[in-house]
Amino acid sequence: MTETYKLFLERWRTIHDLEKVQELLDWDQQVVMPRKGAEQRGNQQAALAGLVHDRITDPELGELMDSLAAKGTPNEDGAADLREAARERERTMKIPRRLVKERARTIAMAQAAWAQAKAADDFESFQPYLEKVLSLTREMAQAIGTPNPYDALLDEFEPGMTESALKTLFGDLKGRLLPLLDKIKGATKPPGEAPVKRCFSRDRQEVFCRVIAKDMGYDFEAGRLDVSVHPFTAGTFRDVRITTRYDENFLNTALFGVMHEAGHALYEQGLDPERYRNPSGPSSSLGIHESQSRFWENLIGRSRAFWVYYYPKLRQAFPDVLDDVSLDAFYGAINVCRPSLIRVEADEVTYNLHIIMRFELESALLAGTLEARDLPEAWNTKSQELLGIKAGSNARGVLQDVHWSAGYIGYFPTYALGNLYGAQFMETLRQDIPDLDSRLERGELLPVKEWLNNRIHVHGRRYPAPELCRRVTGKELGAVSSIAYLTRKFGEIYGF
Amino acid sequence: MTETYKLFLERWRTIHDLEKVQELLDWDQQVVMPRKGAEQRGNQQAALAGLVHDRITDPELGELMDSLAAKGTPNEDGAADLREAARERERTMKIPRRLVKERARTIAMAQAAWAQAKAADDFESFQPYLEKVLSLTREMAQAIGTPNPYDALLDEFEPGMTESALKTLFGDLKGRLLPLLDKIKGATKPPGEAPVKRCFSRDRQEVFCRVIAKDMGYDFEAGRLDVSVHPFTAGTFRDVRITTRYDENFLNTALFGVMHEAGHALYEQGLDPERYRNPSGPSSSLGIHESQSRFWENLIGRSRAFWVYYYPKLRQAFPDVLDDVSLDAFYGAINVCRPSLIRVEADEVTYNLHIIMRFELESALLAGTLEARDLPEAWNTKSQELLGIKAGSNARGVLQDVHWSAGYIGYFPTYALGNLYGAQFMETLRQDIPDLDSRLERGELLPVKEWLNNRIHVHGRRYPAPELCRRVTGKELGAVSSIAYLTRKFGEIYGF
Repeated sequence: MTETYKLFLERWRTIHDLEKVQELLDWDQQVVMPRKGAEQRGNQQAALAGLVHDRITDPELGELMDSLAAKGTPNEDGAADLREAARERERTMKIPRRLVKERARTIAMAQAAWAQAKAADDFESFQPYLEKVLSLTREMAQAIGTPNPYDALLDEFEPGMTESALKTLFGDLKGRLLPLLDKIKGATKPPGEAPVKRCFSRDRQEVFCRVIAKDMGYDFEAGRLDVSVHPFTAGTFRDVRITTRYDENFLNTALFGVMHEAGHALYEQGLDPERYRNPSGPSSSLGIHESQSRFWENLIGRSRAFWVYYYPKLRQAFPDVLDDVSLDAFYGAINVCRPSLIRVEADEVTYNLHIIMRFELESALLAGTLEARDLPEAWNTKSQELLGIKAGSNARGVLQDVHWSAGYIGYFPTYALGNLYGAQFMETLRQDIPDLDSRLERGELLPVKEWLNNRIHVHGRRYPAPELCRRVTGKELGAVSSIAYLTRKFGEIYGF
Repeated sequence: MTETYKLFLERWRTIHDLEKVQELLDWDQQVVMPRKGAEQRGNQQAALAGLVHDRITDPELGELMDSLAAKGTPNEDGAADLREAARERERTMKIPRRLVKERARTIAMAQAAWAQAKAADDFESFQPYLEKVLSLTREMAQAIGTPNPYDALLDEFEPGMTESALKTLFGDLKGRLLPLLDKIKGATKPPGEAPVKRCFSRDRQEVFCRVIAKDMGYDFEAGRLDVSVHPFTAGTFRDVRITTRYDENFLNTALFGVMHEAGHALYEQGLDPERYRNPSGPSSSLGIHESQSRFWENLIGRSRAFWVYYYPKLRQAFPDVLDDVSLDAFYGAINVCRPSLIRVEADEVTYNLHIIMRFELESALLAGTLEARDLPEAWNTKSQELLGIKAGSNARGVLQDVHWSAGYIGYFPTYALGNLYGAQFMETLRQDIPDLDSRLERGELLPVKEWLNNRIHVHGRRYPAPELCRRVTGKELGAVSSIAYLTRKFGEIYGF
């Protein structure tokens, strides 16, 4: 390892450490911080954001990188490190330090305001915060200066993806999903959701969720499970924390929520121990990240094979509650497909429509053709148009997701990309482990984890997401695999 | 406000914010961090320590301060700001950045090792970590370069105090405490501790502790109560968190522990909202801080007047447990004076002996006349000498306190100073509120809180601790008030 490369890595590792502190402060705010601490947290986040900006834009770092680029990096990973570092530095250089600090402070305050507004179903109290976040986010997109401002934001979450590519992809997806949804709606013997809407005690839910997460391979000594208003995963490597929320009258919320977050967490816990603090070591694009969470939540967690093993255990965990429900009835209940209000609880078919709806709304918000004050109405109109239903409250409508309060515009599409990546990964996994279903039926989850560890996690961002996708699946990303999977699965369940 | 002063404040407020992030990371490690996260936490703390060092030693900050010193500060608070900033900067300039980073990383690892060693009663596993912390702490004391290395460390916690002054003070204190202890030992009708050693359910203890903390004026919306291996308080202003631990067979542990920590927390919550991020705004010396915690724990919490109001409530909180115990028997039980092993659970008389013992040991550790490997034996010898008892295990002996793992040498004496400050403060309080006891008997705690808010908290470090003491009590700090208080109180309880 050359001295220059070593110095370059040292600097980036410190930047990584500081970014993880920012992430921890966010976890703390969402999980344990006292209500009145938001202003101080805003100051802290602003101070850290300024420091991280200083270190990424430091001219001395630039010189090290120029020298590496001229002399060449020691090996393939070194080249990936330089590529990723250059990407982040180039982007950061364009955003003024003042803006970075103001945005960090504003977001801390806006997230606190959002949590309260959601609890009180009071969009108006959140509106001024959202306006400020939007205005700073527009300013940031402008500073980055791509021809299309949405692309500037998207690039942070899914490098290389563009709004126009998303429009094409989502157009295709919508065009294939709506006919599928029509078939489902027309089914004569649809499964019923009643079994998962019985009474499931919160404490027993937590115990069961912990068992599943542990069986998936999630290391609780390198993580923890807490409650938050909006479920999420924070941290990396040996400190990866997941959160969920419990609904005593709806089993799916926590159960599939924990599998989702544990899927994210396995990715972070599965990074290369030698490289996780290097520029190319951390997890890849958010689309790839969501492919991991949605993979466990749906492709595994909502599969029949998985429940062959776990359904008897679930029955034991909730004595008497499910005695009269057969495995098939339960399998149907967790796969009921029906337009619903809450994205994170949506079935696999309608889920993507929730994403397309948010994508269209946030694109308009960023362009300024939609203003924050008009968002609740626009939300309901769009919901009616795409899902055929309207939220009775803003708490279950436009306020349901934390993302916009955190300035995450360009993030939602990655969930749908995750579904598409995931379906393609599953095709390869089935080639590599032909007896996957019988293994799942025996409760063997670790082969799945290890396959994901080896094929995806350990690489970090060694390969850009499109290349990683080609390497693992042999194909470009598209909607075909996902639609084929959904058609087959829901055809069986709904009998068409 | 001049432009220079404004720029100076801005820079120090950012330093303050970053120091609070360091403190939060420590809280997180001790309360919620997954076991395997210690190494990453060490990296994070090292990165932050380096950045804070950079900002305090920044030549531009030095220029601002020189200019302020030359032109004069806007007002009295400005002068205090400059004084405190100069103190911190001068100290920091002497400690190499490398050392600051290495020490921060080592401490994060050592604290994790300590918690495990304590749980496993395994001093040997902790010894190498302690050795490294000690070696770095000696190096730091040397770098600061006072003639006496212990003074260099003490100065961080109790500015202006010296080892030699402590020796005199503690000599005086020991000389007065030992005869008092002899009288107590000779009492013919000592109270019994049995009532507080009954079975008190953990959950009910927590509920009761929360009520007391709230009644003291602790704002739970600007704080929280958690469990940790060693109880402590972290944070400031509107985010001040306290921790405790519960022993179902000993009421005192959590009850007086929470009053102690809530006393610290009231100080932090009571700082001047306009000044808490300025150099002279935060809480004063640790001796003053401990005066607040020990004040609530003992001078209020172990007073008869307090329990006239709260004892009936305690009985209600634990139905049937204390039915046969009179108020006086309970008051005796919480004031049983007897050499015991655990410092934080010690009575008011023997408590100071625990401190003197630690003071003598850490002074020898720093000087290098005592090595880490010989510490368990030295601990027991000293314990036998001063308290007349020896710990049966290192977990309840040398491993009981977190401080040395955190590199806190020169910290323990501030607890005894807190007792002395507190006794003097109480004398003034009784002059200002002559009917204090009847107010306490009616459950009125807020007048006490408000008096402390106005006389101590709001000033922050506007005055150096010795000056604050003179201003509030009209006297220099000494052992007289404390000894008078202890003699009167324990004379009544033990009948001499």
